[in-house]
Amino acid sequence: METRALHVNAGGGYDIIIEPGILDRAGEHIRRTLPGAKRLFVITDSHVSPLYGARLVASLETLSFEVHTHVVPAGETSKCPGQLVALWEWMAGHGITRTDAVIALGGGVVGDLAGFAASTILRGVGLVQIPTTLLAQVDSSVGGKTAVDLAAGKNLAGTFYQPDLVLMDPETLGTLPEGVFMSGMAEVIKYGCIWDREFFDFLAARPSRAELTEHMDHILLTCCDIKRRVVEEDEHDTGLRMILNFGHTLGHAYELAGNYTAWSHGQAVAAGMAAAAGLGEKMGVTEPGTAERIEAVLAPLGLPTRIKCGAEHIERALGVDKKSSGDSVTLILLERIGAVRRVKLSRADLIERLAGEYGR
Amino acid sequence: METRALHVNAGGGYDIIIEPGILDRAGEHIRRTLPGAKRLFVITDSHVSPLYGARLVASLETLSFEVHTHVVPAGETSKCPGQLVALWEWMAGHGITRTDAVIALGGGVVGDLAGFAASTILRGVGLVQIPTTLLAQVDSSVGGKTAVDLAAGKNLAGTFYQPDLVLMDPETLGTLPEGVFMSGMAEVIKYGCIWDREFFDFLAARPSRAELTEHMDHILLTCCDIKRRVVEEDEHDTGLRMILNFGHTLGHAYELAGNYTAWSHGQAVAAGMAAAAGLGEKMGVTEPGTAERIEAVLAPLGLPTRIKCGAEHIERALGVDKKSSGDSVTLILLERIGAVRRVKLSRADLIERLAGEYGR
Repeated sequence: METRALHVNAGGGYDIIIEPGILDRAGEHIRRTLPGAKRLFVITDSHVSPLYGARLVASLETLSFEVHTHVVPAGETSKCPGQLVALWEWMAGHGITRTDAVIALGGGVVGDLAGFAASTILRGVGLVQIPTTLLAQVDSSVGGKTAVDLAAGKNLAGTFYQPDLVLMDPETLGTLPEGVFMSGMAEVIKYGCIWDREFFDFLAARPSRAELTEHMDHILLTCCDIKRRVVEEDEHDTGLRMILNFGHTLGHAYELAGNYTAWSHGQAVAAGMAAAAGLGEKMGVTEPGTAERIEAVLAPLGLPTRIKCGAEHIERALGVDKKSSGDSVTLILLERIGAVRRVKLSRADLIERLAGEYGR
Repeated sequence: METRALHVNAGGGYDIIIEPGILDRAGEHIRRTLPGAKRLFVITDSHVSPLYGARLVASLETLSFEVHTHVVPAGETSKCPGQLVALWEWMAGHGITRTDAVIALGGGVVGDLAGFAASTILRGVGLVQIPTTLLAQVDSSVGGKTAVDLAAGKNLAGTFYQPDLVLMDPETLGTLPEGVFMSGMAEVIKYGCIWDREFFDFLAARPSRAELTEHMDHILLTCCDIKRRVVEEDEHDTGLRMILNFGHTLGHAYELAGNYTAWSHGQAVAAGMAAAAGLGEKMGVTEPGTAERIEAVLAPLGLPTRIKCGAEHIERALGVDKKSSGDSVTLILLERIGAVRRVKLSRADLIERLAGEYGR
């Protein structure tokens, strides 16, 4: 694997650099991108810190940055207002200035939380994302969405805030547990479904972690490039960006049905994509056989293709969906692999269709 | 007094409407500006709510909005992370959607807090500012700065978020206590100092609340128009906007010295402007006699022209100043009334000059 790089024209514009071992060279990249930074505030979690924290900090200190590190407990519960406020007080207490930067080292929870903190401390400081999970590398580290969860639902408070730099070390994926890796693969497959039939076929031909890992640089680059194009057109999520939610409306209902513990985000999205394809076929929107093809890619990776949930979970998922407005819901369906169509349905109609087909 | 209006080209662009009695017509203006809004979340405080809350809510309900109201305790202590999080949970619990809006009814504390909440719930919803104090009308409601205070200092967490509409009812100033009115006058005088000699002279010729109140529409319009020009050029506070800080660096030190209770923000800024003019004269930057002219406008209004503070307060004020970067500090000085110059000084040099001249 070699170095791959992308430039994203959103926010002030930023590079995504994909390179094995880049953790050890992070300091140089950050110095070049943020020449005014003196203090770096590394935010990571209790899983990632023992694996990669010391290597990152060593690379930063070699470049004479003043480095402060805050380790949050691993897991979704850290993505909460209390942690956000603790990060604010911690950074303010260490005299952060507007030219300093936050470094998010970890998965989606760390990226969303640290991004929110970076976007709001002093009304915005530098931000470097170093995602260490597949899901974070292909999804949450690109696009500038930050968030914490509230009692009423996930991701309900946050900002749009583009990073200054994204560094991805594909080698960090080696330490991911099987389930976490495969959860990320659900989002990878999503990019094939919504945008790139050829990429979908590429993934279909490699139905194991070993085969996928061999081509991880190509996979990361392809996903980030698709996300880049979508985000560049719709930075503030008012149109095109909605297509990234393919499989997510139902996925959200499945997560609720499983109380956020039975199913991971990726598992829920996998089954959500299969269900959305099936629904599209029944509605005459989606090419027949599409659901079957998607299921044939998901199943060998151990991803679920069907999850049962009740109408009440679908209602709750729609109720707090940031995409919903008034009584209608926009659902992302496929025309075929590689091409999406947005379909507007009344909330009641959608719930009836879904509850009838997949609810029980 | 008649209706005055300004359009600000920042964010998505928004109108500022200045009109006596506009509180009773707020619903119509909001309906026109935010046609997609169904739910309005009125955030106000325990002083303002009994004075104007019912009138505003009546005007909104006439237009069939679903109105929810949250009253925070009056005073700076409400501008805290805890209130922000409470507002998030409150709005999410009432099923806010992205086309709904927050209405900030009150002074700077309410405007800053409600603006921060509006900018971050669902990553940003509609925002209408209805400032009811002179300070909020000429300063915090225009420009899109939102904030809460942290333990380490004031306004240390926040966002840049432009409102969709600003409604000002000059009649609300009638209920302001004398000190609060005059505190706002310090910021009014600042606009004359930094931008408009003619406006400064206009104010100098009207040294009483009664005379000023007679011309309040002209005063509000002039201040907002100056702030509009500055904000349009520098929405994210990286250059020109700094001139709005004239008198504020020292003002901040005075507020610290008085533990935020001895002196109001406006009183501290008043003395800060006089001191900055005096310092500028001593440095040969400012036209001789300028400090005296400023003091002659402040004094009849009961605003202080000199406040003592120690070097340690100046240091603390500089330490957490969002404008500071590294070891140098940019100070806003006047060349003469109506014209500013930014002067870069080393932190140590500035502290020595200030401590020597005004510190003890």
